Amino acid sequence: MANLKESELKELEIEERCLRLSNPHLLPDEDDVLYHFGLTKHSTDLPVVFGDVRFVCTGGSVGRLACVAQEIATSLGITDGSDRRNLCNSDRYCMYKVGPALCVNHGMGVPSLSIMLIEVIKLLHHARCKNVTFFRIGTSGGLGLEPGTVVVSNAAVNCELKPIHVQYVLGQRTERPATLDQKLVQELLEIGSTLPFPVATGATMCADDFYEGQGRLDGAFCEYSMEDKFKYIQTLFDAGVRNIEMESVCFASMMTRADVRGAIVCATIVNRFDGDQVAIDKATIKQFETRPMDLVIAYIKRHWKKPEVSAS
Amino acid sequence: MANLKESELKELEIEERCLRLSNPHLLPDEDDVLYHFGLTKHSTDLPVVFGDVRFVCTGGSVGRLACVAQEIATSLGITDGSDRRNLCNSDRYCMYKVGPALCVNHGMGVPSLSIMLIEVIKLLHHARCKNVTFFRIGTSGGLGLEPGTVVVSNAAVNCELKPIHVQYVLGQRTERPATLDQKLVQELLEIGSTLPFPVATGATMCADDFYEGQGRLDGAFCEYSMEDKFKYIQTLFDAGVRNIEMESVCFASMMTRADVRGAIVCATIVNRFDGDQVAIDKATIKQFETRPMDLVIAYIKRHWKKPEVSAS
Repeated sequence: MANLKESELKELEIEERCLRLSNPHLLPDEDDVLYHFGLTKHSTDLPVVFGDVRFVCTGGSVGRLACVAQEIATSLGITDGSDRRNLCNSDRYCMYKVGPALCVNHGMGVPSLSIMLIEVIKLLHHARCKNVTFFRIGTSGGLGLEPGTVVVSNAAVNCELKPIHVQYVLGQRTERPATLDQKLVQELLEIGSTLPFPVATGATMCADDFYEGQGRLDGAFCEYSMEDKFKYIQTLFDAGVRNIEMESVCFASMMTRADVRGAIVCATIVNRFDGDQVAIDKATIKQFETRPMDLVIAYIKRHWKKPEVSAS
Repeated sequence: MANLKESELKELEIEERCLRLSNPHLLPDEDDVLYHFGLTKHSTDLPVVFGDVRFVCTGGSVGRLACVAQEIATSLGITDGSDRRNLCNSDRYCMYKVGPALCVNHGMGVPSLSIMLIEVIKLLHHARCKNVTFFRIGTSGGLGLEPGTVVVSNAAVNCELKPIHVQYVLGQRTERPATLDQKLVQELLEIGSTLPFPVATGATMCADDFYEGQGRLDGAFCEYSMEDKFKYIQTLFDAGVRNIEMESVCFASMMTRADVRGAIVCATIVNRFDGDQVAIDKATIKQFETRPMDLVIAYIKRHWKKPEVSAS
């Protein structure tokens, strides 16, 4: 903290926000198994290893998250090789801790995301992290946008177009509000306006599958017509939806429950008004995929100062 | 076919069953992108590479499926190295084709499973495969069973205890019957009775998350009491549920829709009446995980004959 000005310290004080762990059953002295990471509270000194995490970057694929870790290391001048050390003792997820950033993949769909988020929230709580911001960096199908456009979600809605994550708890249907931090959305849009690719905002629809749930015509099963499809995606567009993916409502609802900031930043890799198949070449997809990452890294650079090593 | 007896040929004729692809929008001459495998119908000669697939083995983790591929190669005497060649040109899944078996992982949860199944069903259809049987080889939380017990599911039920997979199609709630082939269940139980570990049967409940959706007390959030939890899992037990995982209703419903046989064979790694955390050591988990695989491989060995190489 020695290098921060008084005004910055004041801002930090106001911001000082712990993750909210709302579970009376977790006892401070007992071990806690983070099963899908292959870590436990007592097997790793979590405050030492993870205590300075300020940003969590997540996304579906293992390869993309490895790439995010490497880009963060390059951008922040971190040369300790941490961007190549996978900290998971399990093959369910991969996890890199690069300076202030924890990079962890979430697989595809809400259930896979929910396991990762719950275990990361527990991990960061045990590590006594503060003022953490989460970013989901993903790909998505766009509505009325040029492929390659980055969408910063200003809302996350389910397949009934409601900003709600429906969960079954003890067999009972439970609704969780899925809200997103609008201040964070605005700041990302502001940064995005300075970058050399299109950045838009709009609502993001969370589907539970890639084919029928998103109105695609190219699955193994399809019981609706092309007209039905276009009518449907036009309804989504008219309601403000600009892209479709498979994690947003759960991500937003968990951010709300844990009382942390979180943003969803996805590249669109197809304009669903033009087709369903993702038929662009691999190099172009890769280029599109780096865009949300570039935006999030620009945010991190703005909000993090490399600690100066004190002369001893 | 030259090496089969007439009676065997007759049996094959009766059995001859193609996968049902119910999508009039997929045209025979057009290419088809299997996006999450990084394959397309025209980029790979699918009938040549995959045409003799008779068994699909799937499960959550990448590492486990690599292990399944290697075990199948060893058990069937396949020495061409195919058990070490990942055929996916994408890091979303891994895929091995070992003799008559396609081994592909599905990640965690229904959405991730559904993408894989749809793309595998399309792949096997394009490859003109016949008489295919699917196996989900997984881990699960057990109810009233000694950890390590293998459960062959005789039913798959959702969180409302209904044998239904609920899907949203064009924004409309749609119910898909989730049924399992009882003849296949019986045969697996019969084979299981000869193996050196406990094999049971019962209904399998499909949850959409690992923590609250399964009544665990050790998530980041928990709004119910220990008494509520035990009351809930007792209700499940009384309804015939013997294990809980996160994919079964979707697996069962897709088997029904594609008109193929499919079975769910999971090891239990915790008895939920005794606790929630998976606290057994890695070596024991690994040992438990191999059990469903051993049972499925015993089935495959019974139903497959290595083709004799004809002298030319």
